[in-house]
Amino acid sequence: MKIKLVSINPTIGYLKHNFEKILENIKRAKSENIDLIIFPELSLLGYPPLDLLDKKSFVEEAISYHQKIAEHSKDIGVIFGSVTRIDDQIGTNLFNSAIFCYDGEIKSIHRKSLLPNYDVFDEVRYFETSKEIHLLEFRDIKFGVTICEDAWNDKDFWVHQKYEFDPVEEVAKLGAEIIINISASPFSIGKEKVRTEMFSSIAKKHKKPVLFVNQVGANTDLIFDGGAKVFDRNGNLILASNRFEEDSVLFDTTKEYEKTNYTFPDDVEDIYNALILGIKDYCKKTSFTKVVLGLSGGIDSSLVAVLAKEALGPENVLCVMMPSQYSSEGSIKDSQKLIQNLGVKSTVIPIIDLFNEFRKSLKNEFQNLPEDVTEENLQSRIRGVLLMALSNKFGYLLLATGNKSELATGYATLYGDMCGGLAPISDVYKTKVYELARFINREKEIIPVEIINKIPSAELRPHQTDQDTLPPYDILDKILYYYIEEAKEVDEIVALGFERELVEKILKMVDRAEYKRKQAAPGLKVTNKAFGTGRRFPIVQRWR
Amino acid sequence: MKIKLVSINPTIGYLKHNFEKILENIKRAKSENIDLIIFPELSLLGYPPLDLLDKKSFVEEAISYHQKIAEHSKDIGVIFGSVTRIDDQIGTNLFNSAIFCYDGEIKSIHRKSLLPNYDVFDEVRYFETSKEIHLLEFRDIKFGVTICEDAWNDKDFWVHQKYEFDPVEEVAKLGAEIIINISASPFSIGKEKVRTEMFSSIAKKHKKPVLFVNQVGANTDLIFDGGAKVFDRNGNLILASNRFEEDSVLFDTTKEYEKTNYTFPDDVEDIYNALILGIKDYCKKTSFTKVVLGLSGGIDSSLVAVLAKEALGPENVLCVMMPSQYSSEGSIKDSQKLIQNLGVKSTVIPIIDLFNEFRKSLKNEFQNLPEDVTEENLQSRIRGVLLMALSNKFGYLLLATGNKSELATGYATLYGDMCGGLAPISDVYKTKVYELARFINREKEIIPVEIINKIPSAELRPHQTDQDTLPPYDILDKILYYYIEEAKEVDEIVALGFERELVEKILKMVDRAEYKRKQAAPGLKVTNKAFGTGRRFPIVQRWR
Repeated sequence: MKIKLVSINPTIGYLKHNFEKILENIKRAKSENIDLIIFPELSLLGYPPLDLLDKKSFVEEAISYHQKIAEHSKDIGVIFGSVTRIDDQIGTNLFNSAIFCYDGEIKSIHRKSLLPNYDVFDEVRYFETSKEIHLLEFRDIKFGVTICEDAWNDKDFWVHQKYEFDPVEEVAKLGAEIIINISASPFSIGKEKVRTEMFSSIAKKHKKPVLFVNQVGANTDLIFDGGAKVFDRNGNLILASNRFEEDSVLFDTTKEYEKTNYTFPDDVEDIYNALILGIKDYCKKTSFTKVVLGLSGGIDSSLVAVLAKEALGPENVLCVMMPSQYSSEGSIKDSQKLIQNLGVKSTVIPIIDLFNEFRKSLKNEFQNLPEDVTEENLQSRIRGVLLMALSNKFGYLLLATGNKSELATGYATLYGDMCGGLAPISDVYKTKVYELARFINREKEIIPVEIINKIPSAELRPHQTDQDTLPPYDILDKILYYYIEEAKEVDEIVALGFERELVEKILKMVDRAEYKRKQAAPGLKVTNKAFGTGRRFPIVQRWR
Repeated sequence: MKIKLVSINPTIGYLKHNFEKILENIKRAKSENIDLIIFPELSLLGYPPLDLLDKKSFVEEAISYHQKIAEHSKDIGVIFGSVTRIDDQIGTNLFNSAIFCYDGEIKSIHRKSLLPNYDVFDEVRYFETSKEIHLLEFRDIKFGVTICEDAWNDKDFWVHQKYEFDPVEEVAKLGAEIIINISASPFSIGKEKVRTEMFSSIAKKHKKPVLFVNQVGANTDLIFDGGAKVFDRNGNLILASNRFEEDSVLFDTTKEYEKTNYTFPDDVEDIYNALILGIKDYCKKTSFTKVVLGLSGGIDSSLVAVLAKEALGPENVLCVMMPSQYSSEGSIKDSQKLIQNLGVKSTVIPIIDLFNEFRKSLKNEFQNLPEDVTEENLQSRIRGVLLMALSNKFGYLLLATGNKSELATGYATLYGDMCGGLAPISDVYKTKVYELARFINREKEIIPVEIINKIPSAELRPHQTDQDTLPPYDILDKILYYYIEEAKEVDEIVALGFERELVEKILKMVDRAEYKRKQAAPGLKVTNKAFGTGRRFPIVQRWR
């Protein structure tokens, strides 16, 4: 039997478009004499559809496409992901499902048993848990069909189980010969490795081939890295498609395969690819063609400019330099060099007069009070207002250029540099920003070395550097990583070799900046724990 | 047996403070010869603690207080709400629990079976579902202890069940003589009536007294209206404490009670009380004493000024008037009349020069393009920058003054009038804003009638009115209500008597403004479906 696993990039809620994408692939597969074609989890809806699932008309229209897909399954088996309904008047009545069609009919429906409800996932909000497991039988082969999380509860692979039930074990018990997993499993650093090792281990444990196919493409904050993979019964990875693009693999059950020479990607290259896909899809799916961003002469905005250019082309990127009295000479010169290297558009709008006008307007209120963070924020906010004016006038999407270390510590101005429709690197620590810059420069200098080498500064007051307020980034980022991603506490972090006073100060900064992050632009998730939907702390709370 | 139900106002995560509040009440109850004192759901933690529950140290510290509370239960039974843990290595191991102490010991733990996971609730993210039900026995009375949602699945009261299981039925079956429900049930319009009728119906159905005690106080967006109530076995409400404040009722099981003459509150008065509590607690629990807001001469900012004054006192409210060339004469005059009526502080900062300076700075970019929404947003953003400067310099909390109708339709400027730490009326429709204004003026004119009677306008261009862009508010608000709160679709709303074209236009406006709302200040929830944590739509999606 020839089985094709197709990683597609659906748009959330765009049922007609996603349906057509599925049809196109079915047609192509037919011409290739494929027996069974398999699409990812919720491939008809896009992931995550969130509260669209509360709309009756949305669910009904999605379901109405099932028969239309089945009509194209005359000579080919098709498995796709969608929502199904069982109207028993208890709960939401909805199930996250894999639907199997053949011979023009829906032959079987396989409902998800394990609903992830942590980090960015809220599936219990929308779906009911299926307790009923059955096999998919097609041309004398018995398949065990699982959906994403269903495969993430193996008690031999994980120390801690999230659920009591293991659907993979159940389908194996029922006699599945091949295990299928259709997924919408979002990208994060290192996940490709865990995912691959986990499926390899499942294949080996149950002595059955495992076929895995993942959604690809970005939906707001989540980037799906895609990838289709086949593991043989010994756990060897024998087929792997490209990630970060629509791609497929063809598995012939009658053929013998060698182990692939697949190597795990480098983290930095992975992040780079993920961010470009994230920007590209945000724009494409919201119909923006052009972006605007403020270029400060620092490394963060330089990185965002490079990513935007790669995602959208240089002609669609406008970089705006907005020097103040505190800007260093390099801030313009270095930016211009970068602009030249990238071939993007640019303009200069000085903010000195605007800053002075604001100080004049506020003179009566401020009397002779000394300048403080207020005046620093003023400059940042003037820049935000200018960028938003360009965004409004010309229909450009504004990209915010802040990184995760800043967002974590609150070293960012709300309604200032935090302005934007998308914050591409808000889940990238400053130290990773440097690694990305060096990766970008691996063959030739794209980001001027002056930008990489300069001492980080917001340039909002004379002689300011980031390290006036923050510890060195290599220390800061480690503490942030332990706190945010590993959920470690003060004592545990101190035990790892950091000063208690510093750890306490940093953690307090993170906690106190919650109110800013609640109003931040959506960012692209690349770590295990991004700020945004996956991290939920109360603004008003007193735990320290 | 003398039972006291105490509605307390805990602060999320402030364990020491909440513990002390519980102790204080226990001591007072002892002096009153109370046999059993009952506190609300998660009274030790505050509700909702969210991801604080992922912190081991937080859970451990919370649990360490249980024994300390038990130590004070020598001569009195105590039921309070907290988290408990069962380390079985599956799931989160945490349970939302009612803990019963007596005689210096923890006597029994009653774990929540039904975990709400819709709207603003995400309990499945944190807690495991308890399948084990047992009674609480104290001094020859058998109590059935339920926690909030546990009581919200009665198949005779609700047409649609969310869960298969009914814990109230279970405790009744086990022989409970009195049913207790400890809650953290947030306020929304009309909920007091539903809640009261539901508990009355439960009491009547099971022929047992029902004791209900709710948390009071606001935590960021959620306002708990509090209230303790006792229903007799015939479903009569026999005792009811005050809402919107810490209060209690004393129920003597040996006494006969008459039905109270409790009448359901007026919606508008309820909202008014809720909003004042919301502002007061946000400030108190985040240690702000003063607020600042922009006063435009319109009804929205006038209402917010009144609410802020009621919550914090006139000396703690700074109203800023920021007239432009498009401001009407009345905008200052009417505001000044309001300021006088309220006795709040005020200042005037004209924005004409700043607006001109921005236009000058952008002249090269904008060439001779006609003025459009860009210039309107510019004015709004200049005001945002000025207000944030005052907030930064003096440590005032900025209150955003936008209403729900604006936030729904996107008739608000991101980083402009949407700036703020809290948006007190962002869940109040414009028509309700008028009702609140009339309620406030019920005895004497506080909000000048000129403000109530003027034609709504953002005054961002000459002769602008809201109705250039939006339909009349009485029509708009009805459409919004059906769409947002009743989840009705185009056809259903049209069937209620609205023009299809208008309905489609409005719904599209709501969908398209999602990106703005994702960056909005937290608002105070007063309706069934507020924007914010309880309504989750993808930004990038194409369903219309």
